[in-house]
Amino acid sequence: MFFWLKNPKSKEDLQRLLTGLRTLGGIETVRAIHIGVPAETEQRGVVDASYSASEILCFDDVAGQNAYQVHPIHKKFVADCEHLWEKVVVYDVKPAP
Amino acid sequence: MFFWLKNPKSKEDLQRLLTGLRTLGGIETVRAIHIGVPAETEQRGVVDASYSASEILCFDDVAGQNAYQVHPIHKKFVADCEHLWEKVVVYDVKPAP
Repeated sequence: MFFWLKNPKSKEDLQRLLTGLRTLGGIETVRAIHIGVPAETEQRGVVDASYSASEILCFDDVAGQNAYQVHPIHKKFVADCEHLWEKVVVYDVKPAP
Repeated sequence: MFFWLKNPKSKEDLQRLLTGLRTLGGIETVRAIHIGVPAETEQRGVVDASYSASEILCFDDVAGQNAYQVHPIHKKFVADCEHLWEKVVVYDVKPAP
């Protein structure tokens, strides 16, 4: 998932978001977590570097992802941080056949 | 990176793209690779399930990513497969501070 902050130049808002994202690693069905920010790569036309933060969460299966959606830690994260972001885009991915 | 096929209903085009994506794992600086398709999760408003295929490639550093960009295997992939896709979006991510 990718987050665009309302105040993309605010280091405080970014830190608040990153702190919130880190809490999601405490959800039992999350098997792996990677929290990121845009890398300093060449800005080719296909590269979207406009986001503020990214998070990859790995689950065993859809059931694990469903449990995450309704987990109190996830709900607290949304309640605490949703005022910070302007846009979220989520790509749910499974291994290709 | 995320790919949107010109013919999203063509299983043949998807297989051609997935086959091409798999070749990228042969590039020396690629440390890990994950090739995906949309998962069968609930279609909440923030979920973008319109893409056809996704690929995560991990590099040690920007130098490794630069080597990938100009690698013959990458160039062959683009030459062989770019007629298949309508859109590509790349998010270059580094670990959050």
